[in-house]
Amino acid sequence: MRNLDEHNITAEAHRRIAATPDARLHQIMRSLIQHLHDFAREVKLTEAEWFAGIEYLTKTGQMCNEVRQEFVLLSDTLGLSQLVVAQSHSRAAGMTEQTVFGPFHVEGVPTLIEPGSDIARGTQGEALYVSARVSSGDAPVEGALVDVWHADAEGHYDTQDADWAVERSRLRAVFKTDAEGRFSFWSILPKSYPIPTDGPVGTMMRATKQSPMRPAHIHFRVRKPGFDTLVTHVFADGDPYLDSDVVFGVRSSCIGTYERLSPGTAPDGTRIDRHFYALDFSFALEPDPAG
Amino acid sequence: MRNLDEHNITAEAHRRIAATPDARLHQIMRSLIQHLHDFAREVKLTEAEWFAGIEYLTKTGQMCNEVRQEFVLLSDTLGLSQLVVAQSHSRAAGMTEQTVFGPFHVEGVPTLIEPGSDIARGTQGEALYVSARVSSGDAPVEGALVDVWHADAEGHYDTQDADWAVERSRLRAVFKTDAEGRFSFWSILPKSYPIPTDGPVGTMMRATKQSPMRPAHIHFRVRKPGFDTLVTHVFADGDPYLDSDVVFGVRSSCIGTYERLSPGTAPDGTRIDRHFYALDFSFALEPDPAG
Repeated sequence: MRNLDEHNITAEAHRRIAATPDARLHQIMRSLIQHLHDFAREVKLTEAEWFAGIEYLTKTGQMCNEVRQEFVLLSDTLGLSQLVVAQSHSRAAGMTEQTVFGPFHVEGVPTLIEPGSDIARGTQGEALYVSARVSSGDAPVEGALVDVWHADAEGHYDTQDADWAVERSRLRAVFKTDAEGRFSFWSILPKSYPIPTDGPVGTMMRATKQSPMRPAHIHFRVRKPGFDTLVTHVFADGDPYLDSDVVFGVRSSCIGTYERLSPGTAPDGTRIDRHFYALDFSFALEPDPAG
Repeated sequence: MRNLDEHNITAEAHRRIAATPDARLHQIMRSLIQHLHDFAREVKLTEAEWFAGIEYLTKTGQMCNEVRQEFVLLSDTLGLSQLVVAQSHSRAAGMTEQTVFGPFHVEGVPTLIEPGSDIARGTQGEALYVSARVSSGDAPVEGALVDVWHADAEGHYDTQDADWAVERSRLRAVFKTDAEGRFSFWSILPKSYPIPTDGPVGTMMRATKQSPMRPAHIHFRVRKPGFDTLVTHVFADGDPYLDSDVVFGVRSSCIGTYERLSPGTAPDGTRIDRHFYALDFSFALEPDPAG
């Protein structure tokens, strides 16, 4: 068909993909084309605006590398990531809720380490002892794999270090729950921090007058066959950014108390001569017969 | 606000950008967020599909370089480019219509050359003589700048050559219309060709069983203060792909006759001892008092 204009082009674009063999892909493409076209018509997008959009998306792709995913960050800050997470994991009351994965997880590093280890590996900060329990219903979940990762006191993840390499991983680890569903580790207290603002997402933050801040948190991924994998954070109760998290990630079931304790004996018997923090948290997994 | 799920997150995302100082940007961002979220809800986008989308957009950005714009190609093949072009230039009857700019124009090269020149610069193909006239209403338009660019007989633009450089430009030029609004040049006959399919757009073409073909055409951009800049193609009448142009660009007012002529004397007096082609075309510009 020829002589396509803004009124008849959507129907023609739908006809063009009508022979898509994969029914799900066809459904997604139809909806994508419809909304893309509706958006451009609704705001009467100009050619200059269209080209600014092309350049924005190009820069976003070119900002991505092995350890930085600017498109994930863009999706996070537009609320798309949390929307997809929420509709993929609607949880029964009492279950720990899912939140965004974020762009800073590294698969498989470092390998499984001893319970009670210090994952800070020399990173400066206030000492934090984390003890946690994984359960489902009333039963502890033994042998679950728990990935932990978080930023340092300046809000930097190890992968943002110029010389980062797997061997120099810090503030990340994988633990296995014991017979009581427990795991524990030492680290440093996480702080609220801004997402990276030196790329296209930062440009958007400034142009839309948004705060780039995330409330302090530690990331957790808890996996065991038979349960829906839990990807979540534990946010710090009282953080000033809990209601304005730039990636829309805060759920009430994901807020924990990072308690400030006086010098003395830590829960694992360690003697501490400065004040330190302790987080005790329980993760409640949702059974997934298919998982 | 916390506890955001797929139902309440769109309103919160709108609240977050409410202080955007630029009213037009605010309007565009609101609509973009609404349609992006509606799309994800409508198809109940899964996390795996979301991530496939992230990877697709990342690859698209990383395929772009100085002479290749894969995001423009993606926009073209989704019908977005032609939609934006059409709604930006609704033309009165009798005016030459606008079509997509495409990713192969090079700004400013080569510089203005002599009327009647051969822009093929040795490129193999069947000889083509183009004579054209630019007018508005009944009056010729003198001194208009006319950019011309097209692909060779294999569908390749010079910028797709591995060793392309401005000095090695071919099949592109800039002319100036004379007192009668005329310009002319020699080149080679353009052929129908597939868009580049070695990138993410090619992946989409194959997955949706679409033809990547464009009907044979020459690109023209005609500019003069006081007229709406005309960006268009002249397509070859009779081409089998006129109704399935992969970038949705064919308008009836942009189809010309590339006439096959016997050896003899060309319109400019040149003696030709093989058969050759001639295109005679009239461009009708839309006045733009603000332009």
